[in-house]
Amino acid sequence: MVRFEDISTPARLAEPEEGIGRDELSLAARNHGLPLEGLRYDVTPPGMHYVLTHYDIPYVADDTSWELTVGGHVEHPLRLDMAGLRALHAVTTRVTMECAGNGRALLSPRPVSQPWLLEAVGTADWTGVPLRTLLNEAGVRDGAVDVVFTGADHGVERGVEQDYQRALPLDTALGGTPEVLVAYAMNGAPLPPQHGRPLRLVVPGWYGMAHVKWLRDITIAERPFTGFQQTTAYRLRQEPDEEGVPVTRIAPRALMVPPGFPDFMSRSRVVRPGSVQLEGRAWSGRAPISAVDISTDDGRTWNPANLEPPTDHRWAWRHWQYTWTAAPGDHVLCARATDAEGRTQPLSQPWNRGGFANNLVQRVPVLCAA
Amino acid sequence: MVRFEDISTPARLAEPEEGIGRDELSLAARNHGLPLEGLRYDVTPPGMHYVLTHYDIPYVADDTSWELTVGGHVEHPLRLDMAGLRALHAVTTRVTMECAGNGRALLSPRPVSQPWLLEAVGTADWTGVPLRTLLNEAGVRDGAVDVVFTGADHGVERGVEQDYQRALPLDTALGGTPEVLVAYAMNGAPLPPQHGRPLRLVVPGWYGMAHVKWLRDITIAERPFTGFQQTTAYRLRQEPDEEGVPVTRIAPRALMVPPGFPDFMSRSRVVRPGSVQLEGRAWSGRAPISAVDISTDDGRTWNPANLEPPTDHRWAWRHWQYTWTAAPGDHVLCARATDAEGRTQPLSQPWNRGGFANNLVQRVPVLCAA
Repeated sequence: MVRFEDISTPARLAEPEEGIGRDELSLAARNHGLPLEGLRYDVTPPGMHYVLTHYDIPYVADDTSWELTVGGHVEHPLRLDMAGLRALHAVTTRVTMECAGNGRALLSPRPVSQPWLLEAVGTADWTGVPLRTLLNEAGVRDGAVDVVFTGADHGVERGVEQDYQRALPLDTALGGTPEVLVAYAMNGAPLPPQHGRPLRLVVPGWYGMAHVKWLRDITIAERPFTGFQQTTAYRLRQEPDEEGVPVTRIAPRALMVPPGFPDFMSRSRVVRPGSVQLEGRAWSGRAPISAVDISTDDGRTWNPANLEPPTDHRWAWRHWQYTWTAAPGDHVLCARATDAEGRTQPLSQPWNRGGFANNLVQRVPVLCAA
Repeated sequence: MVRFEDISTPARLAEPEEGIGRDELSLAARNHGLPLEGLRYDVTPPGMHYVLTHYDIPYVADDTSWELTVGGHVEHPLRLDMAGLRALHAVTTRVTMECAGNGRALLSPRPVSQPWLLEAVGTADWTGVPLRTLLNEAGVRDGAVDVVFTGADHGVERGVEQDYQRALPLDTALGGTPEVLVAYAMNGAPLPPQHGRPLRLVVPGWYGMAHVKWLRDITIAERPFTGFQQTTAYRLRQEPDEEGVPVTRIAPRALMVPPGFPDFMSRSRVVRPGSVQLEGRAWSGRAPISAVDISTDDGRTWNPANLEPPTDHRWAWRHWQYTWTAAPGDHVLCARATDAEGRTQPLSQPWNRGGFANNLVQRVPVLCAA
């Protein structure tokens, strides 16, 4: 029995005033967010799409030997290679994906983990085989409850050595809204290594932890899956020993293209007086976005933004615009999304120990310089 | 006259024990390094190649209206569009690019800026027009000394509002070893936005600050260029008021693919006992790499790695391998590059106030777990 206590410590909260540590910086240097000016693109260029890898990016020089197995509680276990998958009927879906930890480093106290500010998001056109096609071909037997997905990425986390594994409830896995994909292409090209080459799961509307990368096995289970990433990580908890609420679908959020130009080090924004066109994107994995409201006085007053008309891309973000007349001085801009089921972004932090699903309204300080 | 003192503060050093600040984290979340397992690729997939943007990534929806001007101390000023550039004789060069600030966050005291650990590197095949083709067509007049390159990226830095600008000495700009390129393709595809779409400079062997992205103007100057990025930033200084030594070519460095598998949070490595194949890359912008030495005892003893034979890619990194027999316990692995002119990596930090060109030998702690 290997003991990892020296290199793999329990989850913790940062002390008040504790700066970002070397461990958090190591994660920030390798994973990366969408530079927010990238919100201008309907579809995010692959190298600008956020990336989070728990362990290492597996090296797949040649995908001809990659195999996906489908087994467990099924009639006919499957063994599929990439050519076999590409021969099946394919679907392309535009999906906005967001890390469940987006906004974590803005929380107080700060959960010590990947220290995202607000950039852990991106939108891509994902192409692949509907998961239900594979499950129907395998023939799910009566009594199945969960579908477990295993990636090729391997590591230690909080003392537990593991392949990355997550599960979906059977009805979600077989569902049509959203339709889950086993994807082999991103924006019309093979998946880049950091996005799961050669194969990943795409679960429209769910936070990123569900979209298992480097997918190599699908197992249908008769019992609820209790793996680390399902029951230890990705739970909303106020206290460490709670069972917690599972993290699932993406809460509503709007983000703004930072207006004007930045200072290199502080990233503070500078605009000139006069008309400033504000724009950004808004999304929710729960229900379509119904409104985006803008404040140019740090949340005291709000006005509706112009939201682009609904498109066929239900699972992708929507563009919004707002014209602001900037006067010299300091300002704080905010954007706030509301979805069709009435969920709106909170004005005070929705704190939990893991730092998940923090969709606190964005604040953008701007200096209007005459 | 706009005063930026509230948002744009002078360069400074972190206090002892001062954690990474919000400003440094903002840079780390948007810029990103090469996850070091990406050293396995001869040519880095674009989304894994390091990126550093001083200000914002300009949005270029359509490059048909992009114009490159060549002017200043020339006979025939030029005005070129992308079609005109693509019609000229093109060259493709494989280049390892490294940020001058790579290794900064490992320095003590730490200069407060983009907090790179060791990942700010990548290798790509860049295609474009040799700069000397354009300069010869424009006809450089007698008395020219510097060639100034201006990008479309605009911001404030240490109180100075600016477009990003850097210069090369005329003989470097006209030289054949290395041959400077005005590049429009990366790995056979148009430049991704974050790598300079549609046009950037590529200066083989030089640190990244010379490879001006979003290139829109080339001006031949009769006087040495004294812009911010030339004489304030990118200088090796021990004291703030020194003139300093310009940062130019890349110092030798070897990096290792982290062996085994990681812990999520600490990024510590775990291997099993027995034979472990170590591998990595080594490069120098000064002279070809002549040796890579490996230590598996934190630098006490060294043994030569197997270096791949020289290739036609003088400006790209070279692959190295070393077989290590791991015994249970804690180990620190190191790799050290030497170039053909006898430069080797230091074993104590080469400190300067900007945190540039820190090529201190990499240390990789590894737990060998039975």
